[in-house]
Amino acid sequence: MKKLINNPAEVVEEALKGLARAHSELLRVHFDPTFVVRADAPHKNKVGVISGGGSGHEPMHNGFVGRGMLDAACPGAIFTSPTPDQIFAAACAVNGGAGVLFIIKNYTGDILNFDIAAEMCRAEGIDVGSVLIHDDVAVQDSLYTAGRRGVGVTVLAEKICGAAAEAGLSLSEVAAIGRKVSEHGRSMGMALSSCIVPAVGRPIFELQDDEMEIGIGIHGEPGRERMTLRTANEITDILATTIFDDLPFRRNSNIIAMINGMGGTPLMELYIVFNHFARLCDERGVVIRRSLIGNYITSLEMAGCSITLLEVDDELLHWWDAPVHTAALHW
Amino acid sequence: MKKLINNPAEVVEEALKGLARAHSELLRVHFDPTFVVRADAPHKNKVGVISGGGSGHEPMHNGFVGRGMLDAACPGAIFTSPTPDQIFAAACAVNGGAGVLFIIKNYTGDILNFDIAAEMCRAEGIDVGSVLIHDDVAVQDSLYTAGRRGVGVTVLAEKICGAAAEAGLSLSEVAAIGRKVSEHGRSMGMALSSCIVPAVGRPIFELQDDEMEIGIGIHGEPGRERMTLRTANEITDILATTIFDDLPFRRNSNIIAMINGMGGTPLMELYIVFNHFARLCDERGVVIRRSLIGNYITSLEMAGCSITLLEVDDELLHWWDAPVHTAALHW
Repeated sequence: MKKLINNPAEVVEEALKGLARAHSELLRVHFDPTFVVRADAPHKNKVGVISGGGSGHEPMHNGFVGRGMLDAACPGAIFTSPTPDQIFAAACAVNGGAGVLFIIKNYTGDILNFDIAAEMCRAEGIDVGSVLIHDDVAVQDSLYTAGRRGVGVTVLAEKICGAAAEAGLSLSEVAAIGRKVSEHGRSMGMALSSCIVPAVGRPIFELQDDEMEIGIGIHGEPGRERMTLRTANEITDILATTIFDDLPFRRNSNIIAMINGMGGTPLMELYIVFNHFARLCDERGVVIRRSLIGNYITSLEMAGCSITLLEVDDELLHWWDAPVHTAALHW
Repeated sequence: MKKLINNPAEVVEEALKGLARAHSELLRVHFDPTFVVRADAPHKNKVGVISGGGSGHEPMHNGFVGRGMLDAACPGAIFTSPTPDQIFAAACAVNGGAGVLFIIKNYTGDILNFDIAAEMCRAEGIDVGSVLIHDDVAVQDSLYTAGRRGVGVTVLAEKICGAAAEAGLSLSEVAAIGRKVSEHGRSMGMALSSCIVPAVGRPIFELQDDEMEIGIGIHGEPGRERMTLRTANEITDILATTIFDDLPFRRNSNIIAMINGMGGTPLMELYIVFNHFARLCDERGVVIRRSLIGNYITSLEMAGCSITLLEVDDELLHWWDAPVHTAALHW
């Protein structure tokens, strides 16, 4: 295992210390229990937007803490759900009296622990709303999930809900916007190679030199099919067509498109995918209103990509365009 | 070779088409000859800042074209210098009467071709200034270089010169600021793995499972030493100490620090490196005024990192903080 690490057991803690030092104007990191919180939290009468999940998907979620996006993020161990006490402590730290919104990716452990944290919050008089993200069209059930897995739409939901909360909307209003994002967003990914979880020390799945996995999960969960490596255009055809047909996205649908790298894929390759994807949109009459190309929800150093599409109206586009200032997104 | 590509001969062109489509509000891509140019170029009486070099180091340079940074970028084939006609065409496209500044990384081919382009420009009455970046402290001469290689300081020079040009400074003033950056910046990198150049199809160098290369170049050029893999802290000690001692950076030096990923390294590992690096600065009394952590000058999907330090005064910090709006840097 070749990694820039010291001790596999301490990668999350050391990375968080580095994050805190690098972005002290934006955020603070609390340990025991561990959470990342906006430097200027809590904001009186502002809904606190909180997400979290296993580490290893950087920059999600820690890199999205800041103005106009997340008020707090709760990082678990690598590919492991955060615990209820982390989430509860984060909620207490950001609650300004207007309640907190949990943005939860659909994994069994995450749902369980966010639910327990919600009960703890309510017992303390903190209003809690939640949005479940389950956008991965690849498979119905999976290794850690009943129903569809939560992947790339999480990034878009955090941006859009964060903007609405920043503007002072109520908990029920921000939650409704989050559910609208969840309903109108779809994703699918693929891998050329496995990542290596530091504590495991070896690839979490095996692919032959000429193989790829279509529909891979962000924790290496099996996808739809292991098949012979194809060209970027053919791979884009498979991912995009499956997503287009699922909502379905129609002629004149306005979309935000994210072409996401899994961590080990050069940016150049993501633009090659986007180049063909944009042609497919043109053919179908789907209108790309905004795009985001790069590493946003990764799987350590996995090589591969995912495509996330969100059908947007003027409301969602308005919140997407609103200013954001975090370590990983800034405009 | 597992890559998200179609034809190895067309990766640069297809990626540029994707870039153009994704960022049409910021830039245009011209082909034959190939260059990337600000959508709103030329600007009357503004110095045009131009860089370029081999492709494969994304987001550099194309991702830095936009307001407050580069007016144009000239991408060569993968790891191959751009040709003089590309550079000349870019200069003609951005010249608004105040001349153009070439920011050149110290590689023999780049210097030759930028020099020829400068002659072509002068023959057309376009003033040309240039800044040579040769910041890599690892080795004196290298595979494609007499003297030190140009690496991470290029990113900082492009940002800082771009801001000064945007503010309306003259060609000689912007060039002087660029030379100040070049004089006060130092870098060093390391690799855990090789990248694969698409047209070559196999790793460009071999490292054993327990080996790393300290002082690697961004094209896989040999570094100082191939050694047994060490911890992130030990690696950071080696890179940082070598850089600190070179300028030298002293107690109370103010610095901008860039911890750069080579393309295939998870962001988490870069924060682990930064965490230890910041402690080293504290011990030495070196003051980190700004930091930049992520993939900025890569080597395709190489795993590894580099550290770049720039000693700054209020002037350089002022230009660093000025607004920038490009595909890869935005504040």
